[in-house]
Amino acid sequence: MDLGLLYSGGKDSTLAGLLLEDFYDVTLVTASFGITDAWEHARETADATGFEFDTVALDDDVAGQAVETMVEDGYPRNGIQQVHLHALEAVAEMEFDAVADGTRRDDRVPSVSRAQAQSLEDRHDVDYIVPLAGFGRNAVDSLVDATLDVQTGPSEEIPKADYEDELRVLLAREYGEGTVSEVFPDHTQTYVKGFSRAGARPGRPDAK
Amino acid sequence: MDLGLLYSGGKDSTLAGLLLEDFYDVTLVTASFGITDAWEHARETADATGFEFDTVALDDDVAGQAVETMVEDGYPRNGIQQVHLHALEAVAEMEFDAVADGTRRDDRVPSVSRAQAQSLEDRHDVDYIVPLAGFGRNAVDSLVDATLDVQTGPSEEIPKADYEDELRVLLAREYGEGTVSEVFPDHTQTYVKGFSRAGARPGRPDAK
Repeated sequence: MDLGLLYSGGKDSTLAGLLLEDFYDVTLVTASFGITDAWEHARETADATGFEFDTVALDDDVAGQAVETMVEDGYPRNGIQQVHLHALEAVAEMEFDAVADGTRRDDRVPSVSRAQAQSLEDRHDVDYIVPLAGFGRNAVDSLVDATLDVQTGPSEEIPKADYEDELRVLLAREYGEGTVSEVFPDHTQTYVKGFSRAGARPGRPDAK
Repeated sequence: MDLGLLYSGGKDSTLAGLLLEDFYDVTLVTASFGITDAWEHARETADATGFEFDTVALDDDVAGQAVETMVEDGYPRNGIQQVHLHALEAVAEMEFDAVADGTRRDDRVPSVSRAQAQSLEDRHDVDYIVPLAGFGRNAVDSLVDATLDVQTGPSEEIPKADYEDELRVLLAREYGEGTVSEVFPDHTQTYVKGFSRAGARPGRPDAK
């Protein structure tokens, strides 16, 4: 079965791919508004971890609305949520049997309700899978430590690979740099460079 | 990391074990009140699927209270929920770094709230993991079809392997056989006999 995983290049969505790869033919799919080439960083992580990779185009209007929402709110949560749901729809319209994302149990945003999940599945005739939905923060951190080589830091110092970087660029362009730091104060991100040691792919004979 | 998975011998908890085995040293743990030897069926499935196996003793008083609740309610849901939470506590008291169960996204019961999950983790200093929390019914069925050899049917015709069988026996003993079919009308269960074809262990080289 073919599965498209909405992919940011960060630790959560990379771990989600590893959890699914024994059961699905996983393609990492990075969503882009075409505002920056940030998606290229995600492709590098896909190469380093040996996954298939693709991109999907998002609607400019959604970016504009999300940025407007963020500025009105003074925080990014609702804008990110809008874009995440739009990106899931875009992946669901591709030719996959299943779509997935890297949302964790303790994430406040993005979060997809059971009703939204069922609706996505019914409208697109796909399974929607959230492999980390039953993993808390500590469990995710333990698995990531054991598996991946991760760069962690403030958003501005970490290679950005998904639509969040594009939303920041759009925000700066339309409202000025100051608005970016007002809307995203002290935002920490992660970027996966590869496995934590050569050949340490979970469950593979060469990992022993 | 050592993980104890609350195990019934059914398709959901078996699939949960397969999802976790690349990341944890998984032991399947079947909880028993000591009322029947149903747990032996779970051990057979553990042998057939190559997992470590253990049992954990449950408190008789919890069985008595659960059966009382079921009779008062006229349905099994709340009684099962009480026993499931008690069984998770029992596994969490064993020497594991993490505990898990086979609950799915669409299960109404048992269901463990985010607050209950956090409380279990904090009190026992373990991670509580629900590998199927992000999988809907159709996704689980697809993966099970591709992976496991499953016997499905009415509860009375399927080898029973966990505390639910014991609750039925206790219910019959204390309230009569008629009460069992009043409380559990048309209850379908599954029992895993092994992998769906020889060597078809997901992600293993011999599965290709």
